[in-house]
Amino acid sequence: MSGTYVHGYRPRENERLQDQAGTLVELLHADTAYPAGSRVLEAGCGVGAQTVTLAGRSPDARFMSVDLSAASLAEAERRIGRAGLTNVELLQADIFALPFEPGSFDHAFVCFVLEHLSRPVAALTILRELLRPGGTITVIEGDHGSAYFHPDSPDAHAAIQCQVRLQRQAGGNALIGRQLYPLLVEAGFDAVHVSPRMVYADSSRPELADGFTRKTFTAMIEGVREPALAAGLIEPERFDAGIRALYRTTKADGVFCYTFFKGVGEKSSA
Amino acid sequence: MSGTYVHGYRPRENERLQDQAGTLVELLHADTAYPAGSRVLEAGCGVGAQTVTLAGRSPDARFMSVDLSAASLAEAERRIGRAGLTNVELLQADIFALPFEPGSFDHAFVCFVLEHLSRPVAALTILRELLRPGGTITVIEGDHGSAYFHPDSPDAHAAIQCQVRLQRQAGGNALIGRQLYPLLVEAGFDAVHVSPRMVYADSSRPELADGFTRKTFTAMIEGVREPALAAGLIEPERFDAGIRALYRTTKADGVFCYTFFKGVGEKSSA
Repeated sequence: MSGTYVHGYRPRENERLQDQAGTLVELLHADTAYPAGSRVLEAGCGVGAQTVTLAGRSPDARFMSVDLSAASLAEAERRIGRAGLTNVELLQADIFALPFEPGSFDHAFVCFVLEHLSRPVAALTILRELLRPGGTITVIEGDHGSAYFHPDSPDAHAAIQCQVRLQRQAGGNALIGRQLYPLLVEAGFDAVHVSPRMVYADSSRPELADGFTRKTFTAMIEGVREPALAAGLIEPERFDAGIRALYRTTKADGVFCYTFFKGVGEKSSA
Repeated sequence: MSGTYVHGYRPRENERLQDQAGTLVELLHADTAYPAGSRVLEAGCGVGAQTVTLAGRSPDARFMSVDLSAASLAEAERRIGRAGLTNVELLQADIFALPFEPGSFDHAFVCFVLEHLSRPVAALTILRELLRPGGTITVIEGDHGSAYFHPDSPDAHAAIQCQVRLQRQAGGNALIGRQLYPLLVEAGFDAVHVSPRMVYADSSRPELADGFTRKTFTAMIEGVREPALAAGLIEPERFDAGIRALYRTTKADGVFCYTFFKGVGEKSSA
């Protein structure tokens, strides 16, 4: 059962990813813009949550956004249409079998994708192949081991650990954010630079406590309740106590911390 | 035994605090400067590691730096002299029995001190009393629960946990950083703003890997080996494996993350 869990493929998950893109857009994307005429490959665009931000911020670049899921692409198409964007082409394809010639793109962009792959370096290596010399890749990933909060709660950590274990059983890695630097280096990228993007939410920042702590992170952990129980990873009482403890961190005296990592690398022109 | 451990009071610890101030000075202090003529109370100055930075950056403010330890103050005096600073007065005093009139200071500064106190809110309340209406407090603390790294290692986390437990047994709290917001609010400060200061060290930042991961954080954890073993908190083999794993994170493919928290609050002038 748990092996079938892949986030981004359920209605509530889609809503969560949308909320995430809405509240974190500045933190994650403010420093990404592509020049006019650039050909940008977005690998694993899902429902287009990042695509509309990316393409909207670089209106004169041309985006090729690919995903494995036809259902996700259909939703992405609706979003791109609603946003009035005309610089995005969508294509259904496997990241490990992309139908492009080497050197076809100036830039590649990958967000919340590597965490689901059992061979992230292989995927990065393929993307590097598709870049022209001098092209860049931008990768954004979270890291569930970066979550800590006040009041602290062993139950909350146990609930988070369910998500980590389910993702590992599905071949992914929910702790991948911290590894972006060595992964990009191993895949052959040069001038690799990784910057952490920490979300810090206390009650002086109610929009983050609501938009991130409640509706993004805790909703995501809450979303693995069924597969976690089915896999026997935790007792229901403990899981529920953990979720309550996560919501508790959004009260007046609560604090929640989480860190995303953004890595940029170049394909050497030598 | 373990109850006697208080960091900042041993030769190797002092060296560590000096290294810490040297490599982290920009991250922690770049946005702290006091106007000419300001009267600033630094509570818990220790060996003066922060004092020389603070006073050097605000040469026309007057600092009153107090500490409980005469030995630490003697070292602080040497450092202040070597730095050629003439705007610092040192005084031996207990933070809970400071010999000043209410409203004596424009600003208060507290760095790596609350973590050692069993009554941090009481200390903050006292400092607030000593501020004039409209005065500010600046507090900086670490949080050992914010440490994560690649390669991950349960032994390393167990070794870190020894430090957390020893500090708790001594009445302190090594996880206090995340709590700065509620602590400052509870002590009556207004307009409280907390900002995390994350140290991210991969091998593209060798000065941080060396200055922070090795010489600051890992050296600090290594420093509790004896009290941790004496208190029966861990087996020596496991502790040593944990320390090796922490040093391992400074290799070419390693990554180390840690977050300090800086909080600023005002004493309402109403």
